[in-house]
Amino acid sequence: MRVLSNDDVDLLLTMPECIAELELMYADYADGRALLVPRVDNLSPSTEPDSYYAFKQMGGAWPRKRVQALRINSDIIIHPLVEGKRRRVKRPRANGRWVGLVFLFSSESGALIGIFPDGAMQRLRVGATNGIALKHLARDDARTLAIIGSGWQAGGQLMAALVARPFARVRIFSPRAESRERFAATAQARHPGVDIRAVDNAEECVAGADVIMAATSSLVRVLEPAWLKPGVHLSCIKTQEVEQTLLDGCDRVVVHVSAQPKQFDNVMANTPNLAAERESGWWNAPGNRFAEYPELAQLVAGRVAGRSRREDITCFVNNIGVGLQFAAVGALVLAKAVAAGLGHEVPDEWFSEDVHP
Amino acid sequence: MRVLSNDDVDLLLTMPECIAELELMYADYADGRALLVPRVDNLSPSTEPDSYYAFKQMGGAWPRKRVQALRINSDIIIHPLVEGKRRRVKRPRANGRWVGLVFLFSSESGALIGIFPDGAMQRLRVGATNGIALKHLARDDARTLAIIGSGWQAGGQLMAALVARPFARVRIFSPRAESRERFAATAQARHPGVDIRAVDNAEECVAGADVIMAATSSLVRVLEPAWLKPGVHLSCIKTQEVEQTLLDGCDRVVVHVSAQPKQFDNVMANTPNLAAERESGWWNAPGNRFAEYPELAQLVAGRVAGRSRREDITCFVNNIGVGLQFAAVGALVLAKAVAAGLGHEVPDEWFSEDVHP
Repeated sequence: MRVLSNDDVDLLLTMPECIAELELMYADYADGRALLVPRVDNLSPSTEPDSYYAFKQMGGAWPRKRVQALRINSDIIIHPLVEGKRRRVKRPRANGRWVGLVFLFSSESGALIGIFPDGAMQRLRVGATNGIALKHLARDDARTLAIIGSGWQAGGQLMAALVARPFARVRIFSPRAESRERFAATAQARHPGVDIRAVDNAEECVAGADVIMAATSSLVRVLEPAWLKPGVHLSCIKTQEVEQTLLDGCDRVVVHVSAQPKQFDNVMANTPNLAAERESGWWNAPGNRFAEYPELAQLVAGRVAGRSRREDITCFVNNIGVGLQFAAVGALVLAKAVAAGLGHEVPDEWFSEDVHP
Repeated sequence: MRVLSNDDVDLLLTMPECIAELELMYADYADGRALLVPRVDNLSPSTEPDSYYAFKQMGGAWPRKRVQALRINSDIIIHPLVEGKRRRVKRPRANGRWVGLVFLFSSESGALIGIFPDGAMQRLRVGATNGIALKHLARDDARTLAIIGSGWQAGGQLMAALVARPFARVRIFSPRAESRERFAATAQARHPGVDIRAVDNAEECVAGADVIMAATSSLVRVLEPAWLKPGVHLSCIKTQEVEQTLLDGCDRVVVHVSAQPKQFDNVMANTPNLAAERESGWWNAPGNRFAEYPELAQLVAGRVAGRSRREDITCFVNNIGVGLQFAAVGALVLAKAVAAGLGHEVPDEWFSEDVHP
């Protein structure tokens, strides 16, 4: 059994590999050859009165790679008021750190084969997912990219976009000048062949863009209907970034998963602060506004058409993550770690038993 | 983070403690102060054509002890024909061993605090659960115990029964003479103050018994309606051991959990051997025949009456296990392991991260 760190994951995984592995997984999923373990959020009281405890679980089995993944997040949640609005924040109470873990099992032997934190992979898989959508939906000659957002997820979006298309120009906007300038400078240094600049407002950012990617933590819409120009492709990483009006103006909308639009909430009766949770906008509205849209897996497998005309307006909504992504990328990173001798080995016998329970 | 073995669990946990801890948990659960994470069985293909892969997950949060548990079983399942009937067997493919694990998290810090195999605790919790029911349902002056079954689970039933009542006589029956004789000899050596004997048939076993406990792996009924004598208490560890006719003849029936009568099956489309799975009798019939019966937690909390008259016939059906049991008993064993310095310590930092995913 091998324990990896976020650094190991970052060191071992490249975005092109991540994209290739996830595409293969989505094609299998479209054929019924991968199993999604639905997401469940279990909410119960923690010890501090202004918080509660959230234990999230999701997973998936991918027989082709003989792997079952279980990803958990074990979080103390608070809802501070930020500029008059409730925000959902995870308190780092584990010695100042957060707890999100991926457990990998072999579906050939049953054994627990790996454990690693979810952070580095979380960003890679979100980036890769939107990158795959971009590859299948954007114009082949797309060369100008607009990114709204300059945080951690925005970096993953840029990496994936540059794998999917040879962008020549990238424009970045986010509300805080310091943040967008720093993001642009770092990205420019990493990709000297691309013209990467931060700009002062969203309109300047999207002007002339072939692709517009939202990658924010916003709880209100980011993608504006006015940006729907012929031939453009748009994407977002959360449902709040996009409103129905915009989707209605697109020629083709694809979502990540339509079968499981939101988590299942398993809530203990007297869990405190759930009003603040709802107020924070984190809980999805009831109903499934994405049920009728085709899924990314169907697009990858060629079951639904992508862009049919040059002037089509396309949009990808990464509406929810799935644990299957951790099975696919996790199996890849673990195989690479074993080959490279990276990570900590822990005796296998500690995680199996000689009784048949 | 501490890794414990089945030996550690066996060494640290006593049946009286197990019973006390579970009673406290059931009382909290009855008051909505504990959260059950429903059981999900995820079935997908394994690598061998006559098998499939089953990844089972269940769990629970118990805020009083600041703990969240997740119990998983990662099994390669086959269905050999045994005496003309399909049997469900777990293949030990992890270096000849099985994989069932309990992961414990702190709901105060979020941290992963312990991992241990589920085997030793599995038997203790099933025994303790039926022992709690016996304590609340059997006559106070019950002194004669009949146990049908002489396997691993039967041992747990005997341990728990002896905690709940000062039985003077125990009779054991199971089809194989060698097995029941060995069981009786071992038990007699462990409990010299009790008269413990194996007998040749079920009728002799239950004659004069105040309490009859079934603890078998049978897929057909074990408890016979003819055994319903005034004042007797019966119990079983699986639904197949008891038929409706018998339950209809009881004055009071209590089940373990009526809200979640069976697992949720999450099945990949082309998973092989599911016909054999159904034929093995392991899949429950559709519908919930236990929905109308009161639960053990209600009995423990005094919300429903137990035995009201000396001549009442009572029955407890341990219809399904719940992950909350692992939260309760797991928190106890981990605290004792820390105090005793038992188990393997693994660095906490391996299981947390400095990014907010």
